[in-house]
Amino acid sequence: MRRFVIVGQTATASDAFLLDDLAGTSGRLDVLVRCVRAALLYSHGVRRDVIVYLVLLGGPRAPRALRFDGRAAKFLRPDERSLATLVKKTLAREDLGSGFVEGRHGVAIASGGVDVLLADCEGATVYAMEEGAPDIRDAELDADAVYFIGDHIGLAPVPGAQSLSVGPVSLHSEDVVAIVSNEIDRRLPASK
Amino acid sequence: MRRFVIVGQTATASDAFLLDDLAGTSGRLDVLVRCVRAALLYSHGVRRDVIVYLVLLGGPRAPRALRFDGRAAKFLRPDERSLATLVKKTLAREDLGSGFVEGRHGVAIASGGVDVLLADCEGATVYAMEEGAPDIRDAELDADAVYFIGDHIGLAPVPGAQSLSVGPVSLHSEDVVAIVSNEIDRRLPASK
Repeated sequence: MRRFVIVGQTATASDAFLLDDLAGTSGRLDVLVRCVRAALLYSHGVRRDVIVYLVLLGGPRAPRALRFDGRAAKFLRPDERSLATLVKKTLAREDLGSGFVEGRHGVAIASGGVDVLLADCEGATVYAMEEGAPDIRDAELDADAVYFIGDHIGLAPVPGAQSLSVGPVSLHSEDVVAIVSNEIDRRLPASK
Repeated sequence: MRRFVIVGQTATASDAFLLDDLAGTSGRLDVLVRCVRAALLYSHGVRRDVIVYLVLLGGPRAPRALRFDGRAAKFLRPDERSLATLVKKTLAREDLGSGFVEGRHGVAIASGGVDVLLADCEGATVYAMEEGAPDIRDAELDADAVYFIGDHIGLAPVPGAQSLSVGPVSLHSEDVVAIVSNEIDRRLPASK
């Protein structure tokens, strides 16, 4: 399984943001929903072997984590507003216990941050995408893996992670997702 | 100069679309504005050596072409709504003659389709991104180049173009832009 974790250092964990001003009212959830598209969707299809986690560290209900599971995803559309609508509905839930609670269409929510999702990824190799790290093209990549990617602010150190980079330019998070996905596509056939 | 041409086979050339339902009312302009982001923006900056053309073949005023010039771009934000707002304002213009008419912040508009922008790119090598074509990683890339990329429907043949692909999976247009940009970044330093 291929997993991406996007850590939103300011992204709101509450549903109190405006769809009409996503970038201005959500602590930049727009960055994170663009990563969901890049990780899960290809031309006219959903990647069934991919899971995306969003870690939401901003706002009154933080930390919270969202999980988009390609195996169960339905009706996922690529535009920011559709994805933000799905996030907003999921964040409206208040009945959270421990671990992930399944919502609709393959989207789950948990109270907690990186810890709660790492419990979900036991046994997977952990990579952290960082500027200046060794090139992903030169690295061995495990098929069962978790790739951590920062938001517009950056990525805090991920304990136990192997650091990799995607090239000489500091890119938007969603472009890093696209480039990592392409590198994996070229080497490892999609698992079912 | 690095140039991207995104051909929107249904994308509207008029400003009569709703920002609140971009994907549903614009003939999928959402695909095209995501490509503008991927081509022109990196982390906290604008690529000054990149020009993006959008060819709009849908709606009552088609064909029209938009040009986003990284050298003159200002106040460009990465979210779909901001980019769509800029496109909407530009498409409201009616005083078009021949060739591109400069608008605000590095965005220009022209009446016409691929022909009008090719006149703008004289001397550049033309590449067309197509599934199943030779891998871009194995190709020589000219620094002065135009990369044609299709929308969600595909790309009509581009006369005189060298066909290239980005790997085994059929990807969203904006991901193709990101992967092509990364390949160029790794080989050719940014021109000023």
